[in-house]
Amino acid sequence: MSAAPRVLVIHGPNLNLLGQREPGIYGAQTLAQLDASLHTLAAELGAELTCRQSNHEGVILDWIHAAHGTADGIIINPGAYTHTSVAIQDALRAVPVPAIEVHLSNLYRRESLRQVSLSGVACVGVIMGLGTASYHLALRYLVAEHTVRPS
Amino acid sequence: MSAAPRVLVIHGPNLNLLGQREPGIYGAQTLAQLDASLHTLAAELGAELTCRQSNHEGVILDWIHAAHGTADGIIINPGAYTHTSVAIQDALRAVPVPAIEVHLSNLYRRESLRQVSLSGVACVGVIMGLGTASYHLALRYLVAEHTVRPS
Amino acid sequence: MSAAPRVLVIHGPNLNLLGQREPGIYGAQTLAQLDASLHTLAAELGAELTCRQSNHEGVILDWIHAAHGTADGIIINPGAYTHTSVAIQDALRAVPVPAIEVHLSNLYRRESLRQVSLSGVACVGVIMGLGTASYHLALRYLVAEHTVRPS
Amino acid sequence: MSAAPRVLVIHGPNLNLLGQREPGIYGAQTLAQLDASLHTLAAELGAELTCRQSNHEGVILDWIHAAHGTADGIIINPGAYTHTSVAIQDALRAVPVPAIEVHLSNLYRRESLRQVSLSGVACVGVIMGLGTASYHLALRYLVAEHTVRPS
Amino acid sequence: MSAAPRVLVIHGPNLNLLGQREPGIYGAQTLAQLDASLHTLAAELGAELTCRQSNHEGVILDWIHAAHGTADGIIINPGAYTHTSVAIQDALRAVPVPAIEVHLSNLYRRESLRQVSLSGVACVGVIMGLGTASYHLALRYLVAEHTVRPS
Amino acid sequence: MSAAPRVLVIHGPNLNLLGQREPGIYGAQTLAQLDASLHTLAAELGAELTCRQSNHEGVILDWIHAAHGTADGIIINPGAYTHTSVAIQDALRAVPVPAIEVHLSNLYRRESLRQVSLSGVACVGVIMGLGTASYHLALRYLVAEHTVRPS
Amino acid sequence: MSAAPRVLVIHGPNLNLLGQREPGIYGAQTLAQLDASLHTLAAELGAELTCRQSNHEGVILDWIHAAHGTADGIIINPGAYTHTSVAIQDALRAVPVPAIEVHLSNLYRRESLRQVSLSGVACVGVIMGLGTASYHLALRYLVAEHTVRPS
Amino acid sequence: MSAAPRVLVIHGPNLNLLGQREPGIYGAQTLAQLDASLHTLAAELGAELTCRQSNHEGVILDWIHAAHGTADGIIINPGAYTHTSVAIQDALRAVPVPAIEVHLSNLYRRESLRQVSLSGVACVGVIMGLGTASYHLALRYLVAEHTVRPS
Amino acid sequence: MSAAPRVLVIHGPNLNLLGQREPGIYGAQTLAQLDASLHTLAAELGAELTCRQSNHEGVILDWIHAAHGTADGIIINPGAYTHTSVAIQDALRAVPVPAIEVHLSNLYRRESLRQVSLSGVACVGVIMGLGTASYHLALRYLVAEHTVRPS
Amino acid sequence: MSAAPRVLVIHGPNLNLLGQREPGIYGAQTLAQLDASLHTLAAELGAELTCRQSNHEGVILDWIHAAHGTADGIIINPGAYTHTSVAIQDALRAVPVPAIEVHLSNLYRRESLRQVSLSGVACVGVIMGLGTASYHLALRYLVAEHTVRPS
Amino acid sequence: MSAAPRVLVIHGPNLNLLGQREPGIYGAQTLAQLDASLHTLAAELGAELTCRQSNHEGVILDWIHAAHGTADGIIINPGAYTHTSVAIQDALRAVPVPAIEVHLSNLYRRESLRQVSLSGVACVGVIMGLGTASYHLALRYLVAEHTVRPS
Amino acid sequence: MSAAPRVLVIHGPNLNLLGQREPGIYGAQTLAQLDASLHTLAAELGAELTCRQSNHEGVILDWIHAAHGTADGIIINPGAYTHTSVAIQDALRAVPVPAIEVHLSNLYRRESLRQVSLSGVACVGVIMGLGTASYHLALRYLVAEHTVRPS
Repeated sequence: MSAAPRVLVIHGPNLNLLGQREPGIYGAQTLAQLDASLHTLAAELGAELTCRQSNHEGVILDWIHAAHGTADGIIINPGAYTHTSVAIQDALRAVPVPAIEVHLSNLYRRESLRQVSLSGVACVGVIMGLGTASYHLALRYLVAEHTVRPS
Repeated sequence: MSAAPRVLVIHGPNLNLLGQREPGIYGAQTLAQLDASLHTLAAELGAELTCRQSNHEGVILDWIHAAHGTADGIIINPGAYTHTSVAIQDALRAVPVPAIEVHLSNLYRRESLRQVSLSGVACVGVIMGLGTASYHLALRYLVAEHTVRPS
Repeated sequence: MSAAPRVLVIHGPNLNLLGQREPGIYGAQTLAQLDASLHTLAAELGAELTCRQSNHEGVILDWIHAAHGTADGIIINPGAYTHTSVAIQDALRAVPVPAIEVHLSNLYRRESLRQVSLSGVACVGVIMGLGTASYHLALRYLVAEHTVRPS
Repeated sequence: MSAAPRVLVIHGPNLNLLGQREPGIYGAQTLAQLDASLHTLAAELGAELTCRQSNHEGVILDWIHAAHGTADGIIINPGAYTHTSVAIQDALRAVPVPAIEVHLSNLYRRESLRQVSLSGVACVGVIMGLGTASYHLALRYLVAEHTVRPS
Repeated sequence: MSAAPRVLVIHGPNLNLLGQREPGIYGAQTLAQLDASLHTLAAELGAELTCRQSNHEGVILDWIHAAHGTADGIIINPGAYTHTSVAIQDALRAVPVPAIEVHLSNLYRRESLRQVSLSGVACVGVIMGLGTASYHLALRYLVAEHTVRPS
Repeated sequence: MSAAPRVLVIHGPNLNLLGQREPGIYGAQTLAQLDASLHTLAAELGAELTCRQSNHEGVILDWIHAAHGTADGIIINPGAYTHTSVAIQDALRAVPVPAIEVHLSNLYRRESLRQVSLSGVACVGVIMGLGTASYHLALRYLVAEHTVRPS
Repeated sequence: MSAAPRVLVIHGPNLNLLGQREPGIYGAQTLAQLDASLHTLAAELGAELTCRQSNHEGVILDWIHAAHGTADGIIINPGAYTHTSVAIQDALRAVPVPAIEVHLSNLYRRESLRQVSLSGVACVGVIMGLGTASYHLALRYLVAEHTVRPS
Repeated sequence: MSAAPRVLVIHGPNLNLLGQREPGIYGAQTLAQLDASLHTLAAELGAELTCRQSNHEGVILDWIHAAHGTADGIIINPGAYTHTSVAIQDALRAVPVPAIEVHLSNLYRRESLRQVSLSGVACVGVIMGLGTASYHLALRYLVAEHTVRPS
Repeated sequence: MSAAPRVLVIHGPNLNLLGQREPGIYGAQTLAQLDASLHTLAAELGAELTCRQSNHEGVILDWIHAAHGTADGIIINPGAYTHTSVAIQDALRAVPVPAIEVHLSNLYRRESLRQVSLSGVACVGVIMGLGTASYHLALRYLVAEHTVRPS
Repeated sequence: MSAAPRVLVIHGPNLNLLGQREPGIYGAQTLAQLDASLHTLAAELGAELTCRQSNHEGVILDWIHAAHGTADGIIINPGAYTHTSVAIQDALRAVPVPAIEVHLSNLYRRESLRQVSLSGVACVGVIMGLGTASYHLALRYLVAEHTVRPS
Repeated sequence: MSAAPRVLVIHGPNLNLLGQREPGIYGAQTLAQLDASLHTLAAELGAELTCRQSNHEGVILDWIHAAHGTADGIIINPGAYTHTSVAIQDALRAVPVPAIEVHLSNLYRRESLRQVSLSGVACVGVIMGLGTASYHLALRYLVAEHTVRPS
Repeated sequence: MSAAPRVLVIHGPNLNLLGQREPGIYGAQTLAQLDASLHTLAAELGAELTCRQSNHEGVILDWIHAAHGTADGIIINPGAYTHTSVAIQDALRAVPVPAIEVHLSNLYRRESLRQVSLSGVACVGVIMGLGTASYHLALRYLVAEHTVRPS
């Protein structure tokens, strides 16, 4: 019998402002509300969930490194670092934990600078444009995969 | 009480070869098997599902047009047309039916030509890299949205 | 005495949705209404008119080929194929029938992808941005030219 | 009852040489002959016409400014300034008089430098490649529009 | 003893106009004459030959798919689709039948748009610039290869 | 004791339309009102002020040349010539009078064509995006500098 | 009566070295001296001033977030992050406090990499090239604006 | 016997400042001294010489037009307009008088913006980098050519 | 009766290493073996053959020059010079002997730098990707052409 | 007699994972083992060595600043920041301590994004591709230089 | 009294074919005739002349090196190497002998590849488009300069 | 016991001028002095050393070819060919002898053209910017590697 899958959610820069920052684009839900909804779904799916947010690229790197051996999957929304951080790409490649990149908005509808994903190159897949459902679907995917292929 | 949501799945060029074409990239499942799994999930979620495949850009345009009034959501994998068809972008924009673009593989891991999505610009969101689960998650999203906002 | 000039009008992909597709850009008139207005003007100018629409690039190529010997002028709105079809450029070059490219909107005001015209390279001239009047003026031009230089 | 529409025609740099400059491209008609033909058509359509030519970008800017309140439409062939003048784009945007850009030749058939139109961005539409008929059709359009929507 | 090799020839868009379209570039021979000369050579070499032409990208995709198990080699002149079709590249990759791309003219002598070959990426080799001899040499190659390595 | 600093203000093309041209971007104040406010501030600061406006690139060059020996500082808003005039760059470089480039709007928020400043290369500094305050601050700077380092 | 405006000054990476780092470009004044001069001017103008410096992008993001409700205006010199930080652009956009970007040197005179400002896109305006006066003028502007439009 | 060749020298923007503008690059000779030396050489070679200078692009266009029938050769230094004026290219093409473009400095040693010559495209040849000798050699060439091929 | 056609084969840099250099790409045959097979085929076709190899661009230029009057056709594999040598392009243009460019590998499958052919621009056609058969087919073509059009 | 040279080694992001991250590229040695080997060599050469690692760009900037007066040379492997950090370039320029950039892998053999070095611009030299020997050689160089030119 | 100036003329690749290679572009004169005319002019001007031609880049480098101490000026037409040879640029920079680059045709009228001059960067000036007169004028310039500033 | 390692040093074009060519960049040491210092170090390390220099790309190719079987390592400074020679890249790839590319100056500090290394792609590593020490360190590396892995 496989143990409960452990999933780490990493929210990148400026996501602490969710709900007050350009609600027309990012929605009216706060980060606390999003995390609560993720915990509810995790409980329902039998997963252990940890949620973190940082504006510091170095801190995000540290968390990815620490996921090795402590998490079975990563859900990461690297925010603006999606487009500029080769270091996060390297960190995700260095750690043998499958990651899903998520975005609240659809990058292909944003300006060209935001259509590039350096971090997405190192992820299993990318879900974007579905608001907070981007996170929920990523969680479903990681738990289902873990059930099929327990680590 | 909202009626059962109607979802149209459009598979683009070369997807009829699924299971025999580069299984290392696209997996061993055939298109018939993928469609069967989608029908199973649709039944479980209480949705009506129609699945189609064509190698012809014009036929795909016709189907998108016909979705107006006959479908509540579109799941589209435009295959190679993702990167070259302005016409599919226009069709998706012209028809007031929400669409999710899906890809079996992660475009950000492919050659640069395949990192551009012209059709994705006209979709609500994009799910990619999760194999056939990309379709399943899209279906879950469209049904859930329809329940909240019935058309 | 020169015979009545025969003019072929070709509407490209998505133009069948005219009147319902982004009326703010393309106007509220339907394709049937546009064709009717063109027939009225043709009658007034003494021209024979044929109007066709297709979403299929291959069909449009067939029609251009068939215009050889059956039409004295072509009015073509290649829609999204304007920007991507080298094949339509080749077909227009291959057939000795003068063609005018028309667009409802002003390409120079659209995103950069839509400022390129591959098909316009093979036309006598281009009229754009004047709504359905783009078609009317093209028809006037072809009839006037035919009167001066009957084929 | 609407008053006679007032149309201002602005010919840009080097157009004073019309008829003697590369007749293979620009035709054998002189600027005086073109202006005469435009006056004939204007009389027929019940429009008041003023025609001007200058090689000076600043003079063209002054004329566009002066059109505010004295003209109901502008026909402008900015010649070589089409491709280099941000200032003409700004002037056309600043003045609430509809403008049509015209070209004797088809820009899409010229070298790449001449396929860009900075001024066309600020015009209602563009007519090109039809020789002097480009001007005649623009005049017809402006008069017809003015009859429908008098200023 | 190896069976007679089966070779499929696919002519792409506008090649039905061969002989009447820009003979200075493409030669005076018609498509029927070219196909006849290929049948003569095939008979001489002991090969079975099928020749097809279509202006429709989707039809060409269908034919490439159908070649799996029914042909031992493909000679393809994708015409203008050479430069724009990622879908043909994918189809050629998906089907385990060796293909040779041929062109009547030398792409390296055409404008830059025509120097790119998306389909050639998925072919064994490319022969171009030798007029109809490009086809004849490709046929010789495929038959000789088949004798050495019968499928 | 240093003499009153003499400052020349040069307004470039289309700025004569200030107050009536796109007030959402450029504000509701007219050029006369702006010049009046600059004269008031100059009086307060003990500076001599001259304000000029021209749509003609050549006239602007002449004024820059004439500033040599007649002005201690230049405030220049080259309008659209900011992005296209190598000649103004050369003139500013040729004349030993310090210049400040000013813009009513923030160039970094405009389209990419307007993010380049050819003239700014030859100025001491650039102030932009602060509306008419861009001029006022430039005037303060030049007067303060002149007091410290009288010419 | 409006309260004293509160202004936050943020100095980005390497600005702690001011006075010792390439004085030919950045001047001989130290950061402490610059901050002292800003406090003197703030006192004169009746403003409350806070000055901070950090080499950490994440810390700068935290400070921008914290400015919401605690500052009426931001003066920011993002140093090298000007050209690379999408995250700072997002933070400035997310917080409803007007910001002015300042630079000691004139970016248009630096190498091309330094002519781009990602952060300036999210600011009201930019002042550059005037040495420490760039800061002083920004402070004057923010105080004057606050007097007219108290928050 | 051929008449004395008539040569028109056109000096473009900022050349009136010769001798005082960046003497390290452009030399210490004034424009008057350069013109005097050209008159001396013209007298020696039996040529009629006219020298003009303007900062106005439109004026330069007018002079080129007027050269038709009044000059047998043009020596033009378009200054900064070399790099930006399509209109001067057109004017030189429109008038059947051979032109030599000259520059005091070597364009290939300047920044990339100054390595492009739009006007040089329409000249017989270009001489650059030789200081005022660039003009002298051009004059020798035009007189020698005229003797061989009198107009 | 036409004399035996004389064909010159030029192998460019590094081809002397054939058989030992990356056999996975270039095959296991040595240059001597390739030349022997070409002589066998030449004897069969009644052609005179000369084969040369050099690593020196200048030597290759000399050989191309010397082919004038001593050869009826050239088969050239310029190796790495394909992508960089404008001089070989010029040499092939300067000499009235038809040339076929050949490559062992398919350039369209190599990195982008190797998809450019500077020398191919000056050849009748190009055959690539067919291993040593690229040479054999080129030889057949040149002999067949010579029989039809003896020099 | 010169004092023992003090060398600071800075390892950038993800280098703490050395030995476990893609050993095929980066080798099997851990960071602790690498640092131990550097201390051994330093002792042999009579140098004082300090080794640090951080994933935080800001921390790396702080360390570079602190090297002023406390180190005679810097060996820096900026990891992924090599390609994105203008701030590290600025810091290295600001501090008068010679730095050598080192990389375990050969950047010219990596994807194009990793062939750019922003930080290398500010270093004395770069050593790459030699595995941990890149560090050892850099240490030898700094010590040898210091003996010749003690600070 | 200054000694007779010694001038070295270097003709690059393919110039040995002068007179027979595309006479429409390069003229009908042979290289021997050109050299003879240069010797005639040199005698008239009192200069010693040496003329050389090679197709070998390395030989040209040797000659440039050897000019140090044996020539007072170089006239070089690097042919195709103009656009590709960084080595010739370096050689010209390394040797303290002034060089003039000459071209028979006007590079600005050729394809874009030929508008770049890598060698011209290292020359005093460039003369082009004047046929063999380009050489004659360069010789006049070098002799005149030598008289003023004997080496 | 492993035999003495044999190392071949190849100096590319213009390096024979070392010591007299731009000493500010390349140092005052001559090539003979550099080679002498390399022989001294080789003796100390127990290696056999051969040093060669050529300006001819073809000669360099021959030497690389000849190293196969006669050398255990190559130190190559390809000079200007670094940036343009695909042929040297191919030669280094074709021969199974490890090579280190060295440069006296730091390529990342030179103009962009010199930041590209075509030859470096085929080397084990690159050392640059350390003057003649770049050669010395490369020699140490090759000898140390040979001791560990004798060929």
